[in-house]
Amino acid sequence: MKIVIVGGVAGGMSAAARARRLDESAEIVVLDRGEHVSWASCGLPYHVGGEIPEADDLLVQTPDKLRAALNLDVRTRHDVVGLDTAARRLTVLTDDGTDTVDYDALILSPGARAVRPPLDGLDSSRVHTLRSIDDATALREQLDRGAGRAVVLGAGFIGLEAAETLAARGLDVTVVELSSHVLPPLEHEVAWRVTAELERIGVTVRTGLAATAVEQGADHDTVVLADGTRLPADVVVLSVGVRPDTAVFEQAGIATDRGALVIDEHGRTNVDGVWAVGDAVTSTDAVTGLRRPVALAGPANRAGRLVADDILRPGSARPLPPTLSTAVVRVGELTAAATGADRAALRATDVYFHTLHLHPSHHVGWFPGAEQIHMMIHFRAGDGVLLGAQAVGRAGVDKRIDVLATAIRGGMTVADLVDLDLAYAPPYGAAKDPVNLAGMAASNVLDGTLHIWHVDQLEEVRRDALVLDVRSTAEFASGHIPGSLNIPHTELRERLGEVTAAAKGHPVRVLCASGVRSNIAHRVLAQAGFDSASLSGGMLTLRAALGQAADDLLISTAPAETAEAAEPRTVR
Amino acid sequence: MKIVIVGGVAGGMSAAARARRLDESAEIVVLDRGEHVSWASCGLPYHVGGEIPEADDLLVQTPDKLRAALNLDVRTRHDVVGLDTAARRLTVLTDDGTDTVDYDALILSPGARAVRPPLDGLDSSRVHTLRSIDDATALREQLDRGAGRAVVLGAGFIGLEAAETLAARGLDVTVVELSSHVLPPLEHEVAWRVTAELERIGVTVRTGLAATAVEQGADHDTVVLADGTRLPADVVVLSVGVRPDTAVFEQAGIATDRGALVIDEHGRTNVDGVWAVGDAVTSTDAVTGLRRPVALAGPANRAGRLVADDILRPGSARPLPPTLSTAVVRVGELTAAATGADRAALRATDVYFHTLHLHPSHHVGWFPGAEQIHMMIHFRAGDGVLLGAQAVGRAGVDKRIDVLATAIRGGMTVADLVDLDLAYAPPYGAAKDPVNLAGMAASNVLDGTLHIWHVDQLEEVRRDALVLDVRSTAEFASGHIPGSLNIPHTELRERLGEVTAAAKGHPVRVLCASGVRSNIAHRVLAQAGFDSASLSGGMLTLRAALGQAADDLLISTAPAETAEAAEPRTVR
Repeated sequence: MKIVIVGGVAGGMSAAARARRLDESAEIVVLDRGEHVSWASCGLPYHVGGEIPEADDLLVQTPDKLRAALNLDVRTRHDVVGLDTAARRLTVLTDDGTDTVDYDALILSPGARAVRPPLDGLDSSRVHTLRSIDDATALREQLDRGAGRAVVLGAGFIGLEAAETLAARGLDVTVVELSSHVLPPLEHEVAWRVTAELERIGVTVRTGLAATAVEQGADHDTVVLADGTRLPADVVVLSVGVRPDTAVFEQAGIATDRGALVIDEHGRTNVDGVWAVGDAVTSTDAVTGLRRPVALAGPANRAGRLVADDILRPGSARPLPPTLSTAVVRVGELTAAATGADRAALRATDVYFHTLHLHPSHHVGWFPGAEQIHMMIHFRAGDGVLLGAQAVGRAGVDKRIDVLATAIRGGMTVADLVDLDLAYAPPYGAAKDPVNLAGMAASNVLDGTLHIWHVDQLEEVRRDALVLDVRSTAEFASGHIPGSLNIPHTELRERLGEVTAAAKGHPVRVLCASGVRSNIAHRVLAQAGFDSASLSGGMLTLRAALGQAADDLLISTAPAETAEAAEPRTVR
Repeated sequence: MKIVIVGGVAGGMSAAARARRLDESAEIVVLDRGEHVSWASCGLPYHVGGEIPEADDLLVQTPDKLRAALNLDVRTRHDVVGLDTAARRLTVLTDDGTDTVDYDALILSPGARAVRPPLDGLDSSRVHTLRSIDDATALREQLDRGAGRAVVLGAGFIGLEAAETLAARGLDVTVVELSSHVLPPLEHEVAWRVTAELERIGVTVRTGLAATAVEQGADHDTVVLADGTRLPADVVVLSVGVRPDTAVFEQAGIATDRGALVIDEHGRTNVDGVWAVGDAVTSTDAVTGLRRPVALAGPANRAGRLVADDILRPGSARPLPPTLSTAVVRVGELTAAATGADRAALRATDVYFHTLHLHPSHHVGWFPGAEQIHMMIHFRAGDGVLLGAQAVGRAGVDKRIDVLATAIRGGMTVADLVDLDLAYAPPYGAAKDPVNLAGMAASNVLDGTLHIWHVDQLEEVRRDALVLDVRSTAEFASGHIPGSLNIPHTELRERLGEVTAAAKGHPVRVLCASGVRSNIAHRVLAQAGFDSASLSGGMLTLRAALGQAADDLLISTAPAETAEAAEPRTVR
């Protein structure tokens, strides 16, 4: 058996290593067009920033080591330029000319290339992508020559990692993003906190705007935006997405979908003897069932292993798991993460779902160093199956998203989240962990104990309902919705008459800082016969969801310094 | 409906709060014999140590706030001394004498008392338990008067938290534990690292030893151990366990099992109208099905909520989930955590299971700050259902245990662990997260791709098999098993003849530093026809499992400083 693998990182190298462990007798050849294999592409931004000082640190393996440990025949600077699937033969361009390589089984792991939009001036030597070690080295060298101003085009995960790292090196950085918010895979109310953190660390954020040209100058380039803004730039990082690098294989008859190799549940393409993995293939979304490329290292590594199983143990290999697209990014002191489906993806399906926001402490509030986690979950109406989750905060975010990703993979419901037995000691969590709390509130929504309303209903709520703000009078004074009635939740039972008088038969829409006190108030009101609902995530979510517009909307009658008054402790 | 709750922390207060949210009209009375309710008992060690400076910080709620927010009638210094279940009446001792309180529904959440073993001298004023704020205050006061030497009796979670905190205050601390290792709920190879950390922070650890007396002196006490050791002590912390505080209720006819209140799946006792929750009840273990008290805050809080549901929404309340006894403790810079069943619990069942050790980095090794996580999992033979997991390390431990706890709750198998889509960016994890790696190795064990052997088989292995050490020659020189053959894994394919010659037809038992290279070597050997197996967790686990005995066993032919040479990177 001769197995040939095109592309020697992530999925490709996982397949090679697994194949060898399964079969000592197989001939295993890895072809890569680059200088290196098994290197850490996720580390490139940190190498640019200096957090990983040496490029060599990104070289997890070398061809020599791979031959010694796993008897792999790794050939770098081997660019596959042709594929004859009938003859099972690859044409390869090397330093010594053109060569051919035959195979019994072929695994395509060609990855993806940086998208280069049709923009004048992108060929400037000051414009860098960040897809290879050479890219990172070139960018570092330009920084070492004294760059002071950077423009990052594209605010995805890699774009923001680059922006952060450039800012940390002291550059004046502007991020330009076409979408309405940074990190388009994140919900806007989560992304808003990332934007705030970028600004805190000195990065300028421009969203909802395209770049229209890069004007090349002698001393520096100028990035021109659609609104006419001109941004002088000593370096430009282009990070507006990737597309599967599959032209050669498409020409050879491998089926593709918008450029991505189409595979079945075992990673098989439409052609016998050809498998494919990684950033170049379509993946099935675990929640929505939609098929699309997912450029993430975890799924690629998993798929590589399973494809080797399918080749060497046909019939007994497990299928590739559908992906949750779980992702995380560090921006300044913040961590933002997501798993499963987002609101937009769910709205494109016929699934009826609820969304819930909460802002618990990452560990008990009375232990020093507690940080708020801003969480949201989506869950299916009726049975409460968890569909997606996102979170952002300074601590404990990745842990909760990993727990929720595990719950989604397990098909768990929000009631199951209540029952999760998570590790609690004061430095680590709470007897009611944020994940438990999410489950409790969501269960209340499911069984009707809790009615919630959302910020996107604010206009109709202000028109048709009484907005009841149950925070303290000081919190209310620090910023509240015009026309809202303030009755602290501790006084509500005695002052129900005021609610009746103000509501005049209309619904009552309650809010507090985070949703905890308004939930209590909602229960009081609902049992007193009011048509009541509690604002999901409270004022903290409202400010994040409205962003700049919140400052225009909210009325403050108190000095700003009280605006951040901590919510008092409340028994949940 | 009048609901009376005995005990105003954790389970009791969760029940009270939930009951109010479900029913505005109920009369809800909370009786507690102490000064406070809804206070944070888990914070006591940290208050003693000063990490939580003020006792008030532990008071999450006060009776006044609970009345205002939730209309609860909270009565402190109300000691329940009698129960007439036929009359549904409690007898209560207060500052003003004896009173009675009638109920429609009674929730017992009396908690547990510190076990006081029959030891001469335990009545010394220098001996403290750590179960109440008064206990913590008394201990702090004694420390403030200048205590220099402390003895902690009992190395459970609270004992170690106390030991750590006393050492941090500069005391000379000795921990005495009757079991063979600290933290008896942890496996010995996990606990060994905790012992090492205790010693690193200056705590002396004496295990497998009972204290036989506390001799009271004018200037200090002396703790006498079974081996005759005499430990001078200015303070003694007694922390040898708790027992349910249920005598009053047992006398009233509530069924108990070794002192713990027996409840059904809805928290109902054997007597109509009486429910029970918390440290005083028996819980069902989710993995083994055994019933025993579980003194943990998480399950207590959950149960309180569900019991309120059962009282106020009879017929529709979810059952109490069986518990995984997930627990975590910080000791110095280490975190140790466990979930599900341990080896001892599983051996007491008829479940056939495998155990696997691994030592992955908490995030990718090439990102600065990577720390090793020492993990072990137990999983069922045949179907691979995850049964238990433990881990210890300086970072990322609680996250992995929480993920594994979620997986156990979901009934997931080790193959499911492979498929978990966990959040990866370099500061947070790896494309193959430690949990994924555990799943991969365990799946290999299940399907026979990987055979493993364990440290407890060492004697028979040394007698009946060739021990093949596939580490580098430098690592081998730093400490190896006498009689073992050293062939670095990278040379194994070329030197199989040496293995044949040395094995002389006997099995080959392979080891490396952590189990990664020996797994590769095992595959080479197995495919070459050898009866081969790889040591679970490698030399790292061997040293932890043997503890002191490892130093006597292993032969070192190199300077000590090379002993800690990092394992080279290996493609998994």
